[in-house]
Amino acid sequence: MSSQLLTRGGYIDKVTAGVYTLLPFGLKVCNKISQIIREEMEGLGASEVLMPGLIPKERWQKTGRWESFDALFKLKGVDEKEYALGATHEEIVAPLAKQFALSYKDLPFGIFQIQNKFRNEVRAKSGVLRTREFIMKDLYSFHENEGCLDEYYKKAQEAYWKIFERCGIKDKTYLTFASGGSFAKYSHEFQTETEAGEDEVFVCKDCKTGLNKEILDGDFKCPKCGKIQYDVIKAVEVGNIFKLSDRYSKPFGLNFIDNKGKNQTVLMGCYGIGIQRLMGAIAEVNYDERGLAWPKEVAPYRIYLIALEGKEKEGEELYRELSSKGVEIIYDDRKDISAGEKFADCDLLGIPYRVILSEKTGDNVEIKKRSEKDLKIISKKDLIGIAGS
Amino acid sequence: MSSQLLTRGGYIDKVTAGVYTLLPFGLKVCNKISQIIREEMEGLGASEVLMPGLIPKERWQKTGRWESFDALFKLKGVDEKEYALGATHEEIVAPLAKQFALSYKDLPFGIFQIQNKFRNEVRAKSGVLRTREFIMKDLYSFHENEGCLDEYYKKAQEAYWKIFERCGIKDKTYLTFASGGSFAKYSHEFQTETEAGEDEVFVCKDCKTGLNKEILDGDFKCPKCGKIQYDVIKAVEVGNIFKLSDRYSKPFGLNFIDNKGKNQTVLMGCYGIGIQRLMGAIAEVNYDERGLAWPKEVAPYRIYLIALEGKEKEGEELYRELSSKGVEIIYDDRKDISAGEKFADCDLLGIPYRVILSEKTGDNVEIKKRSEKDLKIISKKDLIGIAGS
Repeated sequence: MSSQLLTRGGYIDKVTAGVYTLLPFGLKVCNKISQIIREEMEGLGASEVLMPGLIPKERWQKTGRWESFDALFKLKGVDEKEYALGATHEEIVAPLAKQFALSYKDLPFGIFQIQNKFRNEVRAKSGVLRTREFIMKDLYSFHENEGCLDEYYKKAQEAYWKIFERCGIKDKTYLTFASGGSFAKYSHEFQTETEAGEDEVFVCKDCKTGLNKEILDGDFKCPKCGKIQYDVIKAVEVGNIFKLSDRYSKPFGLNFIDNKGKNQTVLMGCYGIGIQRLMGAIAEVNYDERGLAWPKEVAPYRIYLIALEGKEKEGEELYRELSSKGVEIIYDDRKDISAGEKFADCDLLGIPYRVILSEKTGDNVEIKKRSEKDLKIISKKDLIGIAGS
Repeated sequence: MSSQLLTRGGYIDKVTAGVYTLLPFGLKVCNKISQIIREEMEGLGASEVLMPGLIPKERWQKTGRWESFDALFKLKGVDEKEYALGATHEEIVAPLAKQFALSYKDLPFGIFQIQNKFRNEVRAKSGVLRTREFIMKDLYSFHENEGCLDEYYKKAQEAYWKIFERCGIKDKTYLTFASGGSFAKYSHEFQTETEAGEDEVFVCKDCKTGLNKEILDGDFKCPKCGKIQYDVIKAVEVGNIFKLSDRYSKPFGLNFIDNKGKNQTVLMGCYGIGIQRLMGAIAEVNYDERGLAWPKEVAPYRIYLIALEGKEKEGEELYRELSSKGVEIIYDDRKDISAGEKFADCDLLGIPYRVILSEKTGDNVEIKKRSEKDLKIISKKDLIGIAGS
């Protein structure tokens, strides 16, 4: 459903299966999501970089993933040099960290980026929920021992909860235990409940936690409270976090000198969020029969302004005034389009506040929240306080 | 030279020939450059989108570029679907515009993006000046006739001059006439004079204009004043603009209804700036024997703060105070590093203002511009006014 509404609302444009253009509104939403994530990553003390999409074959061979990682898009340059497009960036970040992490005093630290990933998916589906190219925030953390990794991993979890709270999907999101692969007992996923989800997860609704199908070995038991009651929900994975241990640091010789002067292998963690998928998940849990309904912090604009007949000039003035004060406002000044059509578009687009100027409102404005039915008449002066921030 | 300084200063990290990671400082500079460009593109009324890197083979076949465009990186997905990585985006933007541009009333309009490009270059060289992967701003404009295209093209030129002025390289930059390919008499390049440049251009220094070698047919004549005196300079191309005419609109059937109700082909223009290359060019014209010297608007930070012995706490306080006021300041609080080393790093990094707290400065601070030798003692209160904005 989200992809249909995002397409109808002009947020995204499909180029081919799993490949989309972000149109101006979609880019705005993704930028807002990215900025929320950036702030929370900086809150963890992590530094932002931008790694390349072209990753040389030799790097992937070092970790054995040139052969084992199915989702790699491989290509060759004119000079016969081979690359795989970055589906994830351990093969870049571990050698990079090697240049800087030398002593236990430098640890822990985090490096993140918000960058385009490419995945050679057999089946791209569900619109923006599973694509072949997407923006991803990937954070990598570096540690001297497991205790240090555990501590950072917990803080990263808290940062993730803040992100999902600010994106308006916390209440629908579960922390689930998933397979840890060969190097850790578990990894964790943040799963947001929606009928559009590809995953089936077993959750304890009281604890907002659960297990992924792949690791449900026998009876369910809540990992937090131990209860055996559970619900099966459909969900989309909006974030995942892994303890990588020495899986990628070892092949690249990413070591540090410990406090006894001994050379030791750095331990790593990694933490991902797909931006367009998160946009899709937010859309999935925030729509009704009239269209999208963005939470305030990620909406492309806060106010959708419509001026009825005779009020066009006043509309223009109000638009300019609020814009100059930094209020994110869009003014629907299209001619030859009825007010009813404008109301419908405002609802389809999901802008949090609809503001109308009409004969009826006089010197005031009519304001309506996207999520409510009530209309209110308020003064222009009060508009910023109510809808602007 | 720029690449060595950018590498030593920790701005960039080379992954392989023509492929770089932007480290935190380099990302900051590129983001500042991008924001300047974004503002000037929005000033033209253009809308920002984000097109994908994966472009299906069929799109390139429509324009004949699957075979003719050497610099394409081609690849195949698991489903045997073929793509080329976006080296430029006419094949995405023309079909996209087709969905929106319907009537002469909709024209002209502009669509731009700041996005990763991939070029299968035979020889990647000169550090960040010619790479296989780089961020590019590409603007595409859409028109009903040549007059309309000409007018937009001129406005885009003005926007480009503003960009290069804000980036501190306008005085070293020339507008040169280059080959227009098969569909226009000329295209134009913005060429910045530097010994590191790959291009040789013939310029009239009075008019800041010139000709590229490829179109110098016989004697030089300044395209602006007509004089035949010229200088030959080495330069790097920091921007290029093309009139595309109907080269890409025709194959995709990008038409509009003119004011007589007739179906006509849209004319297009395109306008590019490579972000890392621009960073490299700015670095090339702004360094000395001690290191980089960023112009204010693109510097990663405005102030480099150093607190000498006994002033560390005061440094921390000043740092917090200025940060909280939005001043971009970096505090070099490294222990076990001499003041001299900090001074050297400050100069290498090229931060516009060095600020020192010492016994000597008392309640004041010592400030030094990167580009000047004079030291001044000023009050902390005056610091924001002088260096902060």
